[in-house]
Amino acid sequence: MIQFQCDYNEGAHPLIIQRLCDTNMEQTVGYGEDQYCEEARALIRKACEREDVDVHLLVGGTQTNTTVISHTLRPYQGVLTAVSGHINVHETGAIEATGHKVLAIASEDGKLTASQIEVAMQAHLNEDGPEHMVQPGMVYISFPTEVGTVYNYAELEKISTICRKYSLPLFVDGARLGYGLCSPESDITLPQLAKLADVFYIGGTKVGALFGEAVVITNEALKRDFRYSIKRHGGMLAKGRLLGIQFATLFTDNLYLKISQHAIDEAMHIKKALKSKGITFLMDSPTNQQFPIFSNAQLEVLTKEFLFSVWQRIDEEHTAVRICTSWATKCENVDKLISAIEQL
Amino acid sequence: MIQFQCDYNEGAHPLIIQRLCDTNMEQTVGYGEDQYCEEARALIRKACEREDVDVHLLVGGTQTNTTVISHTLRPYQGVLTAVSGHINVHETGAIEATGHKVLAIASEDGKLTASQIEVAMQAHLNEDGPEHMVQPGMVYISFPTEVGTVYNYAELEKISTICRKYSLPLFVDGARLGYGLCSPESDITLPQLAKLADVFYIGGTKVGALFGEAVVITNEALKRDFRYSIKRHGGMLAKGRLLGIQFATLFTDNLYLKISQHAIDEAMHIKKALKSKGITFLMDSPTNQQFPIFSNAQLEVLTKEFLFSVWQRIDEEHTAVRICTSWATKCENVDKLISAIEQL
Amino acid sequence: MIQFQCDYNEGAHPLIIQRLCDTNMEQTVGYGEDQYCEEARALIRKACEREDVDVHLLVGGTQTNTTVISHTLRPYQGVLTAVSGHINVHETGAIEATGHKVLAIASEDGKLTASQIEVAMQAHLNEDGPEHMVQPGMVYISFPTEVGTVYNYAELEKISTICRKYSLPLFVDGARLGYGLCSPESDITLPQLAKLADVFYIGGTKVGALFGEAVVITNEALKRDFRYSIKRHGGMLAKGRLLGIQFATLFTDNLYLKISQHAIDEAMHIKKALKSKGITFLMDSPTNQQFPIFSNAQLEVLTKEFLFSVWQRIDEEHTAVRICTSWATKCENVDKLISAIEQL
Amino acid sequence: MIQFQCDYNEGAHPLIIQRLCDTNMEQTVGYGEDQYCEEARALIRKACEREDVDVHLLVGGTQTNTTVISHTLRPYQGVLTAVSGHINVHETGAIEATGHKVLAIASEDGKLTASQIEVAMQAHLNEDGPEHMVQPGMVYISFPTEVGTVYNYAELEKISTICRKYSLPLFVDGARLGYGLCSPESDITLPQLAKLADVFYIGGTKVGALFGEAVVITNEALKRDFRYSIKRHGGMLAKGRLLGIQFATLFTDNLYLKISQHAIDEAMHIKKALKSKGITFLMDSPTNQQFPIFSNAQLEVLTKEFLFSVWQRIDEEHTAVRICTSWATKCENVDKLISAIEQL
Repeated sequence: MIQFQCDYNEGAHPLIIQRLCDTNMEQTVGYGEDQYCEEARALIRKACEREDVDVHLLVGGTQTNTTVISHTLRPYQGVLTAVSGHINVHETGAIEATGHKVLAIASEDGKLTASQIEVAMQAHLNEDGPEHMVQPGMVYISFPTEVGTVYNYAELEKISTICRKYSLPLFVDGARLGYGLCSPESDITLPQLAKLADVFYIGGTKVGALFGEAVVITNEALKRDFRYSIKRHGGMLAKGRLLGIQFATLFTDNLYLKISQHAIDEAMHIKKALKSKGITFLMDSPTNQQFPIFSNAQLEVLTKEFLFSVWQRIDEEHTAVRICTSWATKCENVDKLISAIEQL
Repeated sequence: MIQFQCDYNEGAHPLIIQRLCDTNMEQTVGYGEDQYCEEARALIRKACEREDVDVHLLVGGTQTNTTVISHTLRPYQGVLTAVSGHINVHETGAIEATGHKVLAIASEDGKLTASQIEVAMQAHLNEDGPEHMVQPGMVYISFPTEVGTVYNYAELEKISTICRKYSLPLFVDGARLGYGLCSPESDITLPQLAKLADVFYIGGTKVGALFGEAVVITNEALKRDFRYSIKRHGGMLAKGRLLGIQFATLFTDNLYLKISQHAIDEAMHIKKALKSKGITFLMDSPTNQQFPIFSNAQLEVLTKEFLFSVWQRIDEEHTAVRICTSWATKCENVDKLISAIEQL
Repeated sequence: MIQFQCDYNEGAHPLIIQRLCDTNMEQTVGYGEDQYCEEARALIRKACEREDVDVHLLVGGTQTNTTVISHTLRPYQGVLTAVSGHINVHETGAIEATGHKVLAIASEDGKLTASQIEVAMQAHLNEDGPEHMVQPGMVYISFPTEVGTVYNYAELEKISTICRKYSLPLFVDGARLGYGLCSPESDITLPQLAKLADVFYIGGTKVGALFGEAVVITNEALKRDFRYSIKRHGGMLAKGRLLGIQFATLFTDNLYLKISQHAIDEAMHIKKALKSKGITFLMDSPTNQQFPIFSNAQLEVLTKEFLFSVWQRIDEEHTAVRICTSWATKCENVDKLISAIEQL
Repeated sequence: MIQFQCDYNEGAHPLIIQRLCDTNMEQTVGYGEDQYCEEARALIRKACEREDVDVHLLVGGTQTNTTVISHTLRPYQGVLTAVSGHINVHETGAIEATGHKVLAIASEDGKLTASQIEVAMQAHLNEDGPEHMVQPGMVYISFPTEVGTVYNYAELEKISTICRKYSLPLFVDGARLGYGLCSPESDITLPQLAKLADVFYIGGTKVGALFGEAVVITNEALKRDFRYSIKRHGGMLAKGRLLGIQFATLFTDNLYLKISQHAIDEAMHIKKALKSKGITFLMDSPTNQQFPIFSNAQLEVLTKEFLFSVWQRIDEEHTAVRICTSWATKCENVDKLISAIEQL
């Protein structure tokens, strides 16, 4: 079976594996205070074109979301998110486990808008007795979103402006950040993101690393004692250098964006083939996740050779699936898929 | 500098690295449901000589402690531990973060005794209005302890018996399990541990792996829905196969115990050299952590070449340090250290 | 100003005040273990026609909801509720503060249906990887609901049946229980409720008491150690007898239902007057809360003399308000309100 | 039986009962925004000689401690307390339930000293890797303590100075504040307390009220959004006026201190009688709680007529008990007790 069901099927980019091998028996101090972590932090600061940001390397996405959000909010505050936000759906209540309500806002395309945030804040502030309700305390968006869509610069800037108006730190979940930055429909750059967000992370797990998420804190008020929060949530890796080596490699010679671009290119090939065949989509995604709607008959044929994620049952006869590419997707596998699509 | 300050200075055992390289571009399903995790679970069940135990692979120790303890306790219950227990000292309140009090019991040597547990339970049950106090709900011990000591079979059996008498699940933190099992002063085997404990973990981070702790649940009542608890605490690794590959390797050809034995052998060499020199110890440790008390003058000499952890200031003139060996400790480095000790 | 904005404007029923005065200087033991609490518990058991239920007296509604829900759920579970449920809207995230997600289900009339619960459970069980999502662990309904609607026996029995099918404890928030039991549209009795619910509470704060909610636990599995949970959530009143005296009075000579009936009668008079005048309603409520939609002009007139709660702005020209009656509502004030309505 | 086992045996001071009766059928708005609460707040501000403090009225002590502490701390911080502190012993882990470790410091007399706080802070700051440990984030002391002892002004000022040096908010649990202020061994006044503490509360439950604790926040940084925290912890009483009426009464004509003085006077009579008889004490308490050590024979005689709390078994033959007086203690009962002591 050729697996397209997710973007974490393989291990790590060969350059990372090579460097892990080369350094394996070196002795370093623990908990992210080694030279490789320092190197990674420096490279990420440089890529963000900001010397003043704090960078922390964590292991996984749920852990990162939990740590950032619980570090940011006051106890009685909640986090605004699109209803489809990963924190609202697929983290087994990890945010609530830290005592905070996830304040979900309806969204058709996985995105929040600046005006939705404004409406939510005005609604809260105009309550008679707002203290009976959870106070919105920050905004969480995913870039790209869980359904593959992206924000463009203008949209993100508006969101950032509203957030600052209401003193709501803006947190961008970048579990698939590379695939968003390389999307043909987004014009956002990493330095721009570092200007507009108060805190965000650069996903490694789905973009070239074995695991790892690099948190970038740009808002001075959120920097203090962040390492305490990492440790409290079990996210401080003893052999932190593993994270340092991976991110240092990804941020050398622009590797992170290069391998992200590959995933986008392959996804666009698949998308084009699907469209040519008249297949419709649950969501018009310009990133590495595609959500075609197949008939049962089509799906029966394709799933003999290919593994997809079942995303949503549309009706008795049709199902939307998720097809993912990644940095690791082989062109030959994409060719086989396209060929199979053409023969449907 | 030659580093002896901890047992997580290096990467992973070369056989693990080799297998990670060999399998790097294979495609597997995520979240621990791949064939490598299944292989690891089967090998661990076999090593425990119990087919009926559940095995889960997590990333780190604090995460594992948090997940097991919060999964086990009722909300108003706390966990009994020696005051020096890792959960009481070095996890930034991760247990309290899940709502539970750590009920610390005084201990000189890092160990709990069966009678201490009995006294604590009797004290609680005899309270007038016990519901005003946290109810002891489980027992946490470390094997070996944070100060290098070990339980023998008779001690552990007594603890287990008392725990069962009071329906207190017994949880054994085995972050350094291999070093305990190989200690000359412990006669406990893995199958025996699997009989006496309700849940325990086999530490990988400090014993040959890049990272990873294998939780073994023997108590039927604790098995249900454990994967929900893992995910809720951010401990479900997307590329779970990384854990599977590591533990499958460690539990093939008895590698886990072989490399643990090496650490013990080297530690005993160092201990002997220290004793010969008349150095005293904070704790008489039969495992891979040694706690010699050096004079300032001695320390000044040694720390030109070797890195230790400062453990406790004894007086103006003396300091207890921690010297660790591990699976990765090079004989030549131990020889250099012994030589330096002899020349003090 | 005559206040109709809520049902907790006045103190307590005169019989309660009398008994508090009479017993004021008596000495009793604390924390609910006095004879008055025992008397109240016995009377409530009798009213429920079940000798085997546990009864606990708490101070307020949010505290009670938090205590019951956190006592019932496993850590990774959430509570199903209508989106308008008090726990989802007006408790400042008190449920999330205990680590649990509130799983809100859309509802037009404030009620949940048995089939909605079934759909939610089936959706969860059919997930590929349900452990990535919060597991529904209990059902919360309000009787009457926050918008004044009620369940009839057939509806509640269906809900109870589905809950038992899926092992979901059914929790009924009875903050206004008396007003539900006396509603012309509900045929449920207290003994029936005690059969269908696993745990529920009898609201005192809004029905004759100064404060207090009596939790009735019918499900054996939920009884153990409930007093620990009360104390842990700060709900164990030192002078518990205050609660005992109040509930003993309310459950003597059927006082609780008698005074509830008064509130319903007065509410129905107001409802009839509003309908006669052609006023429409946001919700067709058969209980003590009425939600008429007034024009701005009408509201301007009425609010010179009467205090209502603004509930929802309908459009530029219309607003829905809440008008409450209670056990304490004076007939003469209702007459004044009706007269004012008639003159609109 | 004449009850001396605690200081919450009776109802409320007759003046409070009178005013509750007089106002019972008045209509007021809810949640502490009525005129009686405003009156109480103004009177308390005046008694504190500070117009700039925030005053909030809560129902009980555990609830108040939980609300204040969780409102004050950052997630990874803990609260320093004497090991005998109420929050460490008798609140069923309510503080840990909010995610915070209680950092207990050994104490013989229930008091903390400034130098103990300094030592704890220095120890934390000098850690190698302090982020692996809970950060001390505030200081909790009880005045008087749980064992009846009191701070004098010099001691409290030193504590306050150290707290400010390390930016640790100082929280004073005043569940029995009146009995501390009236103690012959304390020279602290309410205005002085309001200068030295960042937040404290004035206990009503044990000093004249049916229930209620008045939180006084003097530190500007802690004032924001405190009502959200009250509600989140289930502490916002619907009929808030009940608290307003009680505290307004207690702070009219110096009633709070007058009735506290009575309790102290009676306690000193009992203490003197005990001393005259050669009875020793577990603790030399200058407040309303006395801890005499009786022989079993003595205890057998006394407990035929009087109810005490068993505090601590001293040896086979002796037991320390707690004897409490309060605002409500009748002179005739004290006379009977003294007479019985004299006849031992």
